[in-house]
Order: sequence, then structure tokens, then C-alpha cells
Amino acid sequence: MHILILGAAGMVGRKLTEKLVRDGRLGNTDITKLTLQDVVAPAKPATSIPVELVTSDFADAGTAGPLVASRPDVIFHLAAIVSGEAEAEFDKGYRINLDGTRFLIDAIRAIGRGYKPRLVFTSSIAVFGAPFPEKIGDEFFHTPLTSYGTQKSICEMLIADYTRKGFLDGIGIRLPTICVRPGTPNKAASGFFSNIIREPLSGKEAILPVGEDVRHWHASPRSAVGFLAHAGTMDLAAMGARRNLSMPGMSVTVGEQIAALERVAGKSVVARIVRQTDPVITGIVSGWPRDFVTDRALGLGFTTAEKTFDDIIRIHIEDELGGKFVN
Amino acid sequence: MHILILGAAGMVGRKLTEKLVRDGRLGNTDITKLTLQDVVAPAKPATSIPVELVTSDFADAGTAGPLVASRPDVIFHLAAIVSGEAEAEFDKGYRINLDGTRFLIDAIRAIGRGYKPRLVFTSSIAVFGAPFPEKIGDEFFHTPLTSYGTQKSICEMLIADYTRKGFLDGIGIRLPTICVRPGTPNKAASGFFSNIIREPLSGKEAILPVGEDVRHWHASPRSAVGFLAHAGTMDLAAMGARRNLSMPGMSVTVGEQIAALERVAGKSVVARIVRQTDPVITGIVSGWPRDFVTDRALGLGFTTAEKTFDDIIRIHIEDELGGKFVN
Repeated sequence: MHILILGAAGMVGRKLTEKLVRDGRLGNTDITKLTLQDVVAPAKPATSIPVELVTSDFADAGTAGPLVASRPDVIFHLAAIVSGEAEAEFDKGYRINLDGTRFLIDAIRAIGRGYKPRLVFTSSIAVFGAPFPEKIGDEFFHTPLTSYGTQKSICEMLIADYTRKGFLDGIGIRLPTICVRPGTPNKAASGFFSNIIREPLSGKEAILPVGEDVRHWHASPRSAVGFLAHAGTMDLAAMGARRNLSMPGMSVTVGEQIAALERVAGKSVVARIVRQTDPVITGIVSGWPRDFVTDRALGLGFTTAEKTFDDIIRIHIEDELGGKFVN
Repeated sequence: MHILILGAAGMVGRKLTEKLVRDGRLGNTDITKLTLQDVVAPAKPATSIPVELVTSDFADAGTAGPLVASRPDVIFHLAAIVSGEAEAEFDKGYRINLDGTRFLIDAIRAIGRGYKPRLVFTSSIAVFGAPFPEKIGDEFFHTPLTSYGTQKSICEMLIADYTRKGFLDGIGIRLPTICVRPGTPNKAASGFFSNIIREPLSGKEAILPVGEDVRHWHASPRSAVGFLAHAGTMDLAAMGARRNLSMPGMSVTVGEQIAALERVAGKSVVARIVRQTDPVITGIVSGWPRDFVTDRALGLGFTTAEKTFDDIIRIHIEDELGGKFVN
């Protein structure tokens, strides 16, 4: 099985690559080739599987053709610019997040001759915009309040239509906010959800810019990669024409996050969280989804790696910190 | 007020033009110029209002720029290829129904300098695909089962996002099936809903290819034009970020249509309906919406011209047949 990952250098792309290399297979099929593409050079994984690294701009009309010419069996499409950048740079956002996807699916279609790869598209809960119910159900409509959410929603539509027409075998999965996101604090408005766990575990202070009653929707990186792997192998016939869906996750308040951190790592770690209310971030976050009903995804076999937020913290300590944290 | 109609030569475009010329104003504002565009030459209406006729292809990248360069205040965007054609000619459908709309909104945005026209987009109930509830509510999600419905849904998203960013002041309205559609019978699967009224009233036979229990969602051409005019003038601030909505209509069965025809025109007219079941058309129509909850549109002042299906037939006799029919 030849697997192509678009956007392989990003956090989810790196973790997916790690898993594929570790497992050597996707589902029950051995991986015979990995093609890793990103706008910055993806790292070459240590593996005996043949790996091709491609550095190219997903927004260029000519990028997709050569990538699909060798007919990869499964394509993980993680290439995107993030919400804040798509909002600040309007044209760039549409070029990468919308036009890039169209170039890809049209390149797949242009091959023809029975080529019909599995295409796994990472969508986002940003397709939903307030006001919405406390729990967003599987049939709630899309009212994105960002250009990023608009672009993700449009790509969902395109992938469903191209699938319906038989040009590819697509699925779009809406990932929860990934927590704990590894790396360093960034300026994303959502950053604090991870910062307040990751930084204290590394002995550093982290700013909490919102109240403890703020509720949000999370899944671990391990869960996200598990969703992708399942989406890459499951029988999609059960989905019928509705090829996009919200992934399972965990709805917790910031207060519950902090209580979990105290249970897992103790009071001294929690003491590194600095409360410093930011009205702008508080305002932005108030418009975000808080909870979901994901019966459809659960029925299709998507499962999270965690049962509690304590598990999410433990997964971070295991996968990112070698099992240790700064007490 | 300068009004631009894109797709002015189509049935709705012609009727909208007639109304604007007849009223001489839109809302409370006098019309000072009409620009009528279509891929086939629109007819020049008899009016003292200055009229510019433009024959051009909406799918050409260069078409929109010159049309918006004179900064029309209100743009009615009716340009599209219909469902059957968009399904049969995949590329053409995306080029006209999606790319054309992007060219338009990008051309508007490119003018800048405070130019922010009202853009009224005609969407379609084809954005919804079965299975759906007996009555489709204002918050039901989009699961189109045609490329046409996909393209309309995508344009809704784009118009909402461009509006949110302040590039234009947009609204998308999902018209019910127009009944009674004037003209001659066409091959559209939905054609019979109008054929079985229009043809018998003209002394001709019409084929009914489905059972009398088939339920569908209708509005008269007069209602459709009324929706457009209201959308062109109403205060859209009340809509917030959600700029697309289903229009009011009437849910009736074919049997109720026929009963209304008998009440309005008598048994001899109804006798011209020939029952000849077509399993293909029956299958297609079974996947179509049957009824809607349109509380949001009603609350925003959208109203139909008819109270009963009898009214829909009477409107056809008045507006198309000069008040007379063949007994």
C-alpha cells in the first residue's frame, strides 16, 4: 500500500507518520511506500519502508498532479493554513485551503482509468459557528464564522460530491481541538488549552486568559492519529453519501482540566498556572463549540484513546515527556 | 438606484425585470439604471429607465469585472446552469455555478473604496439531500445529492464569508420549485409538477409520471420575484452572520394539485392529465424535499403571493394566460 501524506511536516502529519512507520501497516495492509509532502521539507523517518520526501506548495496548480501520478492508495490531506492566518491573509487562505484541495481532487479525477483512492480530509469544528446548541449534533448546519471554517466546509462539500460521482473514495473528519498540543506556546487563541497543561509539566509558567468555567472540546494527538488511521481503512460504504462527520472528543471545562492536572501531577505543577484574564481571547472563545453528540462517528467505529482528561494528560507525559514531568 | 441582473434572460430573470420596470422602483428607491446580463441576449424591456444589455459568459474570468465597474447598488445573481445539466456536464457546472460566482464576488471585492453592494443570490432546496425530516427546518444541514446542490451550497458559504468580511452585503435565498412554470414542457425531472397544470389549461394533454401521493414544495413565479425584491431591499442586519435561508412555500401532494385544478378549471381540464408512471422519475423525486419549516424567512418579512394551490393556478391564469384558459 502506497500512502501519501499532504502536510506531513505539521504536528498531526508527523505523528501520523510516526504511527505508520511504527506499525508498518495501515489496517491489515503492509505499507510499501510513503510519500511525505509539505511546504517545508518533512523529516525523513527512520524506516525500511521506501520514503519519498516532497517539498512543494499545495496552492500551486502543478503540485498535486505529480503527487498522485504514482497512484497512492490512501491520501491523507492535512495541508492547510490555520485559522488565524486564513483570517488575516484572505487570498492566501482561499488559495491553500480551497483551491489547493480542488487542484488535488481534480488531479485525482484526471488520472481516471479506475484510479479511485481513499482520500482522508481533516476538517474542523470551525465549520460550526455560534449560536449553536450546548451539544452540536450530527445534523446541525454549517455556519462558520471564520474564512478557515468556510474553506473547510466547502472542501467537505467538494469531497462528498467527487465521491458521489465516483472520482475518489473520500471522507472528511472534523477533529476536536488537539490537547495536549506538543511544542512551544503559540499565539493561537486556542493555545492556552494546551499551554496550561504542557508548560507546568515542564516546570514553566503558563497564562490562563479565560475563566475556569470555559468549556471546550478536546482529543489527544493519539486519538487524532487513531481517527485518521481508521478513516484510511474503514469501509466507507456504511457512510452512504454523507462523507463528513464530527469526531468523538471530550467536553471539559478549564476548571476540570486543572483539577485533572492536579490529580495527575500534583499541586506544585498546578501552581504554575497564572490567571491573567484577556477579554479578547475570552470573547473569541465564547463563540466556539463546547460539546458534541458524535453518535454517528462512534457507530462507525471511531474511538478516542482516552476516557478522562486525566488520560489526556498521561498520554502527553508518555508520548512527549518520556514518562516524566517536572514536579 | 442601479440594478444589475445576472442571468436576466431566464424565466425568473425575465419576470424580475418585468416587475422592476413596472414598479419603476425597488423598495422606496427609484431605479435609475438597469443592466441585464445573460449568456443569450436578454430582451430589451419597454421602459423609460436606461437599460444596458450585456451578452457574456458568466464563467469567463473577465465577465464580472466590467459589470460591477459601474458600481451597481443591487445585484441579482440568477446565473446558473440547471441541475440536470450540471450533473451531466461536471466541469461546466463547476465553472458556471461555482467559479462564476467566485469571479463575481472577487470582482466586487477588487473595486474596494467603500463599494459594498447588496448581492441577492438564488440558491436552491437542492442543497438538501435525503434522508431528511418530513419538514426541513432552518438549522438542518446541507447534504446535497447533486453537483448543482453542492455548487449552490458552496456559493452560500462564500457569500456569507465575503459578507462577514465586509466585501459585500449578501443574502442567499433558497427558492421552492417554481409552479406553475411558464413555457413548454422540458425534460427536467421536476417538469411534471407544472406540466400537469399548464398544459391542460392550454387544451393539451400532460403526462403525470408519479403517483398522486407524491408531495413537493412549491411557490408561484410571482412569489419568487417578490422574495427577490424583498431580499434586495430589506435590512440584512437582522440576519446576523447567517445570510442564507429557505423561502416560504407550499407543500402539496400531486393529488392536491389536481383537486385544485378541478376546483379552478373544472373536470374537462383535469381529464387532460394522462397517468403514465415512470419509475425513473418516481425514484428521483422520492429523494426530494417535501416540506419545510420557514419560520426564519417569515420572521424576516418574506411572504408568498398565494395562500392555497388554487391561488397558484389562478396566478398562472392571470399572469400567463390573460385570465383565460381552454375549458
